Amino acid sequence: MIESVARTKSYCAVEWKEGHLRYLDQRKLPREERYVEATTESDVAEAIRSLAIRGAPLIGIAAAYGIVLAVQRLPEDADPAMLRVRVERALTLLGSTRPTAANLFWALDRMRKVFDRVGTGNIETLRSRLLDEAMRIHREDEEQCRRIGEFGTQLLPLAATVLTHCNTGGLATGGIGTAQGILATAWRSHKLKHVYVDETRPLFQGARLTAWELSKLHIPFTLITDSTAPFLMQRGIITAIIVGADRIARNGDTANKIGTYGLAVLAHHHGIPFYVAAPRSTIDPAVPDGEAIPIEQRSADEVTRPFGLQLAPDGVDVYSPAFDITPHGLISAIITEAGVVKPPYEFLEHSRGA
Amino acid sequence: MIESVARTKSYCAVEWKEGHLRYLDQRKLPREERYVEATTESDVAEAIRSLAIRGAPLIGIAAAYGIVLAVQRLPEDADPAMLRVRVERALTLLGSTRPTAANLFWALDRMRKVFDRVGTGNIETLRSRLLDEAMRIHREDEEQCRRIGEFGTQLLPLAATVLTHCNTGGLATGGIGTAQGILATAWRSHKLKHVYVDETRPLFQGARLTAWELSKLHIPFTLITDSTAPFLMQRGIITAIIVGADRIARNGDTANKIGTYGLAVLAHHHGIPFYVAAPRSTIDPAVPDGEAIPIEQRSADEVTRPFGLQLAPDGVDVYSPAFDITPHGLISAIITEAGVVKPPYEFLEHSRGA
Repeated sequence: MIESVARTKSYCAVEWKEGHLRYLDQRKLPREERYVEATTESDVAEAIRSLAIRGAPLIGIAAAYGIVLAVQRLPEDADPAMLRVRVERALTLLGSTRPTAANLFWALDRMRKVFDRVGTGNIETLRSRLLDEAMRIHREDEEQCRRIGEFGTQLLPLAATVLTHCNTGGLATGGIGTAQGILATAWRSHKLKHVYVDETRPLFQGARLTAWELSKLHIPFTLITDSTAPFLMQRGIITAIIVGADRIARNGDTANKIGTYGLAVLAHHHGIPFYVAAPRSTIDPAVPDGEAIPIEQRSADEVTRPFGLQLAPDGVDVYSPAFDITPHGLISAIITEAGVVKPPYEFLEHSRGA
Repeated sequence: MIESVARTKSYCAVEWKEGHLRYLDQRKLPREERYVEATTESDVAEAIRSLAIRGAPLIGIAAAYGIVLAVQRLPEDADPAMLRVRVERALTLLGSTRPTAANLFWALDRMRKVFDRVGTGNIETLRSRLLDEAMRIHREDEEQCRRIGEFGTQLLPLAATVLTHCNTGGLATGGIGTAQGILATAWRSHKLKHVYVDETRPLFQGARLTAWELSKLHIPFTLITDSTAPFLMQRGIITAIIVGADRIARNGDTANKIGTYGLAVLAHHHGIPFYVAAPRSTIDPAVPDGEAIPIEQRSADEVTRPFGLQLAPDGVDVYSPAFDITPHGLISAIITEAGVVKPPYEFLEHSRGA
């Protein structure tokens, strides 16, 4: 199943292979397609923390495999108490990598439940069940992307010109992507005319990753600076805006890459539909609204010296939140694998995936 | 007079010195403070075209000095017909460097009027009168900045936190700046609490130039990515937005650095005053509205490989307008050296400077 992902995309963001997690180091893109093998949970945690692996759904998938790695090389007769400590530590370590993406905590919660159910009696069984669950999370995400792509495509008119932000494709998920999965599906369905891709400061995921993926998919697109998006809306060029999400509160307020909120206000001003695409694992029913979503802060260096290029004088004060909150009132619809949800949003516990 | 500018700012964007134009190469900032001597009109044209000299008012000043350089090294007995051709060519060359800034054409028009008045009879007199006019344009701009600073400061409440975009300081004008001149004056008047500086893609004038200037002025500021501005507005942190202008149409529609329009829409959405600060030489009464303002396109490289840093895959399509148009309805007031103009805007021929 996972191999088929690799075939259809010609690259693979994460892949379980011969007892380790093979991942594409996204920090090197587009200059270099470098695959790395993670053999411990610490390797995975570091890859997530450093954004070698990124994208809310993909972070969840990778973290699940990280738990498998935590029990991977223990001897058959490992002490049950030690095994428990090891899994608990891995859950804590992986849960501490990035604070905003809901999928991370959701995936770790699924892994914890398997651990609680299987227990420490037989390490071979535990290993096998944990791997089954991680692969299930991975495969489910692939299927969810496919369904999101189909539901989202139904919302678009013919010859749509869509603006997107950040990266929400195969590099951010276990499948064809969320917002970008809709673009890929709409393109195959001959409904998509053109994509405008925000470069997405500070880490340029649009320029580095989305441009790279859309090129591979042969989808026609134009790269713009983030500040050019309002100009295109003003000129009537944009049919719809579709973005992903890192966490969606119960009332529909959505945390996504910094810049998303501004796009939503501008879409509202210009009467352009603004869609959020995400699997239900991104919905956090424990969070009533956007104010309760923690926002990760990024380092000053990414603004003053992106990839080593000195832009600003040394030592200047920088404020760089990684995400912003788009209030539900600015979101035309939320597209999940279960269908298209329109306002009013009220996501309950059972609205989430398994 | 010009030397005093250099003293108070501790750097000098352009300066007439011993028969040539000395300028600070802004492309090298903030890493290097490199001064260059322009000895021909072609040198000046190339400096403007390459953005070594930039900022609408400063472009006008530099172009005026460029006309002086065109007649600088001609022999006393130069053929009058050749002299005329030379000046005409210099006017055309300098007028072709950048299409949007109104001040460029306004300054060249002043130089042409001096040439028409003085004629080709006495080259020494012509040289002297052209230099007088260029220095007058320079000095007037310095004084206009001072007045804009004072008028603008009156609009601000105490403890204001102001967001600005691009660079509008001593590096963009012949004085303390337009929008930034207001920040400097408000800071000295104890009305300014803090400045947020947009980095301003694609050329990072906020990160490279405004951050450098505000550091030298000891004005407290925080550098942000362009996409972070909406987040700050949403959180109620911004008291006012002040930007400069490259050209203002008769109805108040304003061309300014790409991203300005988005800020204006967001300011409107959040009920934040949005001010444009510019000398009257930026107003183009020949242009009825924003649609008639030509918009310069920048090269793809600035987006895909800023300063040589490869971000996007090679060969991707890029759309990069240098400016956008903010409709007059989104502008709370336009601050010129003649005072604060509030809507409805109707700038007539006589509203412009000499």
